Amino acid sequence: MRNKFAFILPFLLLLLVTNSLYAEDGYRLWLRYDQLNDAARLKDYRKAISGILVDGDSPTLLAAEKELKMGLDGLLGKAVPLTEKLTRKGAIVAGTPESSPLIRSLNINDKLQEVGEEGYLILSTTINGKKVTAIAANTAVGVLYGSFHFLRLLQTTQDISRLSISSSPKTEHRVLNHWDNLDRTVERGYAGFSLWDWHKLPDYIDQRYIDYARANASIGINGTVLTNVNANALVLTEEYLIKVKALADAFRPYGLKVYLTARFSAPIEIGGLKTADPVDPQVQQWWKDKASEIYSHIPDFGGFLVKADSEGQPGPHNYKRTHAEGANMLADAVAPHKGIVMWRAFVYSHEAPDDRAKQAYNEFKPLDGKFRDNVLVQVKNGAIDFQPREPFHPLFGAMPETPLMMEFQITQEYLGQGTHLAYLAPMWEEVLDADTYAKGKGSTVAKVVDGSLDNHSLSAMAGVANIGTDRNWTGHQFGQANWYAFGRLAWNPYLSSEEIAEEWIKMTFSNKEEVVSAIKTMMLNSHEAVVNYMTPLGLHHIMGWSHHYGPGAWIKDKHRADWTSVYYHKADENGVGFDRTKTGSNAVAQYFPPVEEEFSNPEKTPEKYLLWFHHLPWDYKVESGRTLWDELALRYQSGVDTVRQMQRTWDALEGKVDPERFRHVKTFLEIQEKDAEWWRDATLLYFQTFSKRPLPEGVEKPTKSLDYFMKLDPKFVPGI
Amino acid sequence: MRNKFAFILPFLLLLLVTNSLYAEDGYRLWLRYDQLNDAARLKDYRKAISGILVDGDSPTLLAAEKELKMGLDGLLGKAVPLTEKLTRKGAIVAGTPESSPLIRSLNINDKLQEVGEEGYLILSTTINGKKVTAIAANTAVGVLYGSFHFLRLLQTTQDISRLSISSSPKTEHRVLNHWDNLDRTVERGYAGFSLWDWHKLPDYIDQRYIDYARANASIGINGTVLTNVNANALVLTEEYLIKVKALADAFRPYGLKVYLTARFSAPIEIGGLKTADPVDPQVQQWWKDKASEIYSHIPDFGGFLVKADSEGQPGPHNYKRTHAEGANMLADAVAPHKGIVMWRAFVYSHEAPDDRAKQAYNEFKPLDGKFRDNVLVQVKNGAIDFQPREPFHPLFGAMPETPLMMEFQITQEYLGQGTHLAYLAPMWEEVLDADTYAKGKGSTVAKVVDGSLDNHSLSAMAGVANIGTDRNWTGHQFGQANWYAFGRLAWNPYLSSEEIAEEWIKMTFSNKEEVVSAIKTMMLNSHEAVVNYMTPLGLHHIMGWSHHYGPGAWIKDKHRADWTSVYYHKADENGVGFDRTKTGSNAVAQYFPPVEEEFSNPEKTPEKYLLWFHHLPWDYKVESGRTLWDELALRYQSGVDTVRQMQRTWDALEGKVDPERFRHVKTFLEIQEKDAEWWRDATLLYFQTFSKRPLPEGVEKPTKSLDYFMKLDPKFVPGI
Repeated sequence: MRNKFAFILPFLLLLLVTNSLYAEDGYRLWLRYDQLNDAARLKDYRKAISGILVDGDSPTLLAAEKELKMGLDGLLGKAVPLTEKLTRKGAIVAGTPESSPLIRSLNINDKLQEVGEEGYLILSTTINGKKVTAIAANTAVGVLYGSFHFLRLLQTTQDISRLSISSSPKTEHRVLNHWDNLDRTVERGYAGFSLWDWHKLPDYIDQRYIDYARANASIGINGTVLTNVNANALVLTEEYLIKVKALADAFRPYGLKVYLTARFSAPIEIGGLKTADPVDPQVQQWWKDKASEIYSHIPDFGGFLVKADSEGQPGPHNYKRTHAEGANMLADAVAPHKGIVMWRAFVYSHEAPDDRAKQAYNEFKPLDGKFRDNVLVQVKNGAIDFQPREPFHPLFGAMPETPLMMEFQITQEYLGQGTHLAYLAPMWEEVLDADTYAKGKGSTVAKVVDGSLDNHSLSAMAGVANIGTDRNWTGHQFGQANWYAFGRLAWNPYLSSEEIAEEWIKMTFSNKEEVVSAIKTMMLNSHEAVVNYMTPLGLHHIMGWSHHYGPGAWIKDKHRADWTSVYYHKADENGVGFDRTKTGSNAVAQYFPPVEEEFSNPEKTPEKYLLWFHHLPWDYKVESGRTLWDELALRYQSGVDTVRQMQRTWDALEGKVDPERFRHVKTFLEIQEKDAEWWRDATLLYFQTFSKRPLPEGVEKPTKSLDYFMKLDPKFVPGI
Repeated sequence: MRNKFAFILPFLLLLLVTNSLYAEDGYRLWLRYDQLNDAARLKDYRKAISGILVDGDSPTLLAAEKELKMGLDGLLGKAVPLTEKLTRKGAIVAGTPESSPLIRSLNINDKLQEVGEEGYLILSTTINGKKVTAIAANTAVGVLYGSFHFLRLLQTTQDISRLSISSSPKTEHRVLNHWDNLDRTVERGYAGFSLWDWHKLPDYIDQRYIDYARANASIGINGTVLTNVNANALVLTEEYLIKVKALADAFRPYGLKVYLTARFSAPIEIGGLKTADPVDPQVQQWWKDKASEIYSHIPDFGGFLVKADSEGQPGPHNYKRTHAEGANMLADAVAPHKGIVMWRAFVYSHEAPDDRAKQAYNEFKPLDGKFRDNVLVQVKNGAIDFQPREPFHPLFGAMPETPLMMEFQITQEYLGQGTHLAYLAPMWEEVLDADTYAKGKGSTVAKVVDGSLDNHSLSAMAGVANIGTDRNWTGHQFGQANWYAFGRLAWNPYLSSEEIAEEWIKMTFSNKEEVVSAIKTMMLNSHEAVVNYMTPLGLHHIMGWSHHYGPGAWIKDKHRADWTSVYYHKADENGVGFDRTKTGSNAVAQYFPPVEEEFSNPEKTPEKYLLWFHHLPWDYKVESGRTLWDELALRYQSGVDTVRQMQRTWDALEGKVDPERFRHVKTFLEIQEKDAEWWRDATLLYFQTFSKRPLPEGVEKPTKSLDYFMKLDPKFVPGI
C-alpha cells in the first residue's frame, strides 16, 4: 500500500500545485462540478450512484452521457464508470423508450405521454431487481434536460433517494436574442464582444460554442437568434449561411436551434430586386427560395426574428402594408419547413405625436387574428423600452387570437449595464404575475405567454442576451444569474425568483447556508435598489443620451422628442410625471378594467408606477405621508443605502467564496456605489431646480454641482 | 502513514478529476510551470533546490519571489519553501546588493557593474559555506528578469549545477506598440479586441493586465504603447489619464512602462487652441503642461510615440515645419521628466508621384542631427509596409547622428493575419543581420539599432503587438512565438531565430526531442512558405484591398495609386516587377555601396528581392535555369507544399501535444492550406493574363476561374 501511494503521490501533489494556477474566473458558470463539501450528502450520493448507463448513440444522448460522466465524476470526487449492462444497483439509467431497452422495460409510457417532446421523468425505481435512477424522456433532448436536472439536484444537495420528478416546459420556444453585429460589436452588449467569430467560421469551432450550448441546454433554452434585430442582410447570403450552418451543427446535439434576423429589405439589398413589398409575387418568391436555401443547409433552422418599421429599420409600412402582411409573407416562406416568425411589436413612429407608450397597442391590436399560424408577435415586458421598472405591456391579453411571446432584456441596458448587480428575476416575476384581467381575474401575463389563457399551442419567450467574449460570459459575475433565471422562467414562468436565486447560488458559489442566505438577500433586494437610485416611483427613460449609461434627466431638444428625458418626466414647477390618464395621453384606456381604473387614479395606482401614469405636485402626499419630493429624494438615498448594504454583506463573505470572484464582485460593487451616488445626486439636483425644495433629512448632500454632472460625458461606452 | 494518505487521497483524486475540466487553451503562454517530465533532470533539480530567499519588499522583488515560488512549485512538483534565513544548501538567493545582505556578501560589484541597470547575474556559488544559486542585479527589475531566466533554464531542462550567467539588454527600450483604439477595436488586430477595458478603468483591474505584464517581463519587454498610432487625442484628457495611470500602476511591478501615442493636433482638439504649430509658444506650453499633468499621474511615464504627416494623420507639415521641429517640441515637453519621443519615419505623400519606397529616406535623411537627444526615429524594417519580405530599410545606416529604432510588426497584417502559422523571427533576423555597409563591412542593421555602430546610448526596438482578448492572447497558438521572439530579439538582436524557437517550443509545448525538432522544422520553414504562396521573388503589396486579407494582385484604380497592387507589381506582357534601378525609380541609390551595386544588377540581386528592384521579362532566366514565369509558379506551389508538409508534421504529433491545442492548430493549418491555394491560384491566374504561358509541370491547376477569385469579397475581416 505504501509503495503504491509513494508512486502516485508526486503526481497528485503536482495537481495540487498546478490546479491553483487556474483562476476561478467564472467561465464554468453554474455548471461547476467540484466535489461536494457536504460530507453526509456526499457519502449518500457515492453510495447511491455506482455507474452511468446510457443506451443509444445519437449525438444528444452522447452529450447527456458525457455531461453525466463529467458531472458525477466531479461532484462525487470519484470516477463513476460508464457501463453497458445493469450489473449492480445504483446505476443512473438514461434514455428514451426507443434508445434504451431498460427504459422501455419500465412501462412508463403513460407518464411519458404527459411530459411531451422535451419533458422528462426522473424516477427512483428498480430494474431487474436493482435500484436505479431512471432519467427517461420521449426524445434525446428530453434525456439531456433530465440529466442536467439530475446533476442540479446533486449540485444543490437534494435528497435523491426517492425521486419522482416530472417536468416539461410551459413554453415551446425558449430563445435568446443576440443583438450581435457581423463585425462582432454587440448592441447593448456589456460583456466584451460577440461570441460568433464569423471570420473564422465555418472552419474553426471555438470550444466556447459548445460550452454556450451546454449552458443553454442546462436551463432548457432551445433556440438562439444569432444576429441583431437591427439587421444586416448579409447574414442571409451563401457566404454567411455556411457559417451559420457550422454554428447550428455545433449547437444541435444540445437541442439548440439557430434563428436569424431577417432584414425586411434583403430582397433589394442582396436579392437584386427593386422592391421588398410583401405582396409582390417576386418578393414572396425570393423569400421562399431564400428559406429553401437556408433549410438546405440547416434542416432544423428555427425561423426569423424581425424588427420592422421601427427605429429606422425597413418594413411593410414602406409599401403601405400592415405588419401582418409583412409577417405572413415570411411565415409562408418558412412554413413548409416548420419554421416560425417572431415579429416584434416594438414599433413607434417618429412622426406620431402620440404617447410612445400607446403606439404598439394601437398598431397591433387591430391586426389580431390576421397573422398566420406560425407567427408569434414578440412583445417587450413594458410599453416603453426595458426600463428599470415598467407596468406590464397593455398588449398582453389584448390579442387573444394571436400568440404573444414575451421579450425580456437580460442584458442590463438600463439597469447598470456591465457593472451593476441587479438580479432581474423579481422584475420578470412582477410582470409574469401581473393580472391583465383580459378574461377576468387570474388572466396573468404568464398565462398569455404560455398560451394557456387563449389556448395557443404555439408559445415562446425571448431574452435579449447578456453574453459576450468576457471570460465569465456576462461581464458581471452576477449577470450569469440573469441568464440562468431567464432560462428557468422560460421553462416555467411560475417559478419564484427566490427559488431560482437559491438554485443558482448553490450551483455557482456555495451550498453553505450562511453564504446562500447572504447572497440571496443581496440578489432579491438588488433590482429594487437599482430602481430606487435610477427611476423610483414610476419615473422612466431619464438616463444618459444614446449610450444610456448614467443619469440624464436633463436630456432635451434632440431630433426625436421621445428619445429625450423631459418627454418622459415632464418635470416643472408644478410637479413631475407623465399623465397617462384621460386628462393626458389616456394610455390607461389600453388596459382592461379594473386595471384601467387602478392606473387612472393616483390614490389606487401602485406607488411603484405612480409617475408613470400621473403628473403630480411636488407636495402630493404619498403613502408614507411624506411629500412626493421628500419621498423621491429618500428613495434615491435608499437605493444608495441598499448598495452599501450589499457591499457589507459581500465583504462579510470574504474567505467563504473564492478570492478571485470575491475581488471581482467587490470591485464591481464599488463601481455600483459610485454610480448610484451619481444617479442620486445628479437627478435630485436637476429635479430640485423645479421643486425648489430642500433635500429632506437622511439624504446625503451632493458634493458636486448640477452643472458638473450635466457636463459629464462618458466616452466610448460599450454596447452601441 | 496509511491513515494519512487515506485522509488526503480523496482530495487529491478530486483534483485529478477537476483538473481535467480546465482546457489547455494557451492562456498560460510560455509561462507554463507544469511538473517536468524529464525524470533525471527533475531529480537533480529537486536535490539542488531547497528554498527561495528573496530579501527586500519592493513590489518588483515581491513579484520575482512570487514568480519563483509559483514556477518552482510547479516545475518541481513540490512546495519549495520561502525562507528568510540561509539554513541549508540549495537556496535560490535573489536580490540586489542593497536589498539583500547575502547578495552583498558575494562581493560581485564589478561583475554587476558590467550588466547595468537591467542586467543580471545567475551564479552557482556558496554563501556561508552553503551552495546557493544567486540571482543578482543592480535593480529589482534586473532580479525579476534574472528570475524569469532561471525559470527558463528549468523549463528547458538545462544543467543548473554550474551556472555563471551574465545578461543585459542590448537595447534600452523594448517596446510593444498596440494599435488599439479607445472603442477596443484593434487596427490590424487578429486576436479579438483590445485588452484595455477603458470603460471599467480605473476601477477594475483585470487579471489579464497582470499576466500581460508578467509575460512581457519574462522576455524583457519594458515598455508598452497603449494606443494606436492613428491616434485619438482623448486619451490625453484627464478622464483617460486616470485610466492610464491605473494600468501603469498594475504594470509597474513588472518593470513595464506605459507610453501613449500623441495626436499632433491634440492642442486644438482637446486644448482649445487654434493651432498645433510646433513653433507656436502657446502650443509648446500646452504640451509642456500636458506632459507635467501626465507625469503627475504617472511619474515613470515612458513618453510619446507619434505618427505624423502620414496616412491622414496631422503633423508639422500642416504648418510647413519639419519632422524634427515637431518631434523636438514634444521632446522638450517630456525631457524634464526623462521621457522620450519615438517619431515614426513611416511617411509618404499622397501627392508625390515618386516611388513610395524612397520617401521616408528622402524626408528624414536631411534631418539627421537635428533631433533632440531624447528623440528616436522609429523605422519599419522595410521601406514599404511590413510585407512578407522586404529588403532592409535604406534609412538604417543613413542617419548616423540620430538613434534609429526598429519597428517590427508582430501582428501578421500581411502574413496570414490570425490563422496562418508564420514564425517571424527568421524574417527579423534577416533584417537585423543585413549589412548596410554604412561604415564598411559589418555595419549590420542590428548594430544601427542597438546603437553600437554610431555610439548612441539611446536605443530601442518596437514591435506592433499581436495581442488581444482571445483566450490564447494571439489568436493563433503559434502567434505566441512571435511575441516571445520579439522580446528575446529586443533584448539581444544577435540571438538566432532557431535558438529562440527551441526555447519557446520547450517552454510552450514539450521538452521531448522529437516534438521539439518537429515543431522547430515547421516554424523555421513557415515564413518562407508564406512568402512563397503570397509574394515570392520580391513581389510585394498585392493583397486584398484595405483589409489586406487574401490575394488581390488585380487591385487598381483606387484613390491612391500607391495603395494599389498594379503600382507595385507592374505586370505587363513584357514582364513583372518594380524597376528601382537607375532606369526606374533609382531607389537603389539610397543604399550604400556595395549594396547599391548588388541591388542594381538583377544578376547580383538576391533572388528573394528580384522583383522588388527589377522589372524582368517573363522568360528571364533565374538561378535555377528556369524562366521567371515557371519559377514564379513553382514558388507558389512550393508555398502550398510546405503548408501541407507542416500539416503532416503536425498530424504526427497527435498525442504528443495536448488535444486542445493540437486540434486548434490543426484547424488553423487547414485554413492556411486553403488560403495558400487561394493565393496561388488567384495570383497565377492573374499574372497568366500577362505572361500568356502555361503553368509548368508540378503546379496544380486552379479549380476556379480568375473571375471567381476577383469577385470574392470577404466581409468584416477583423483588424480594420
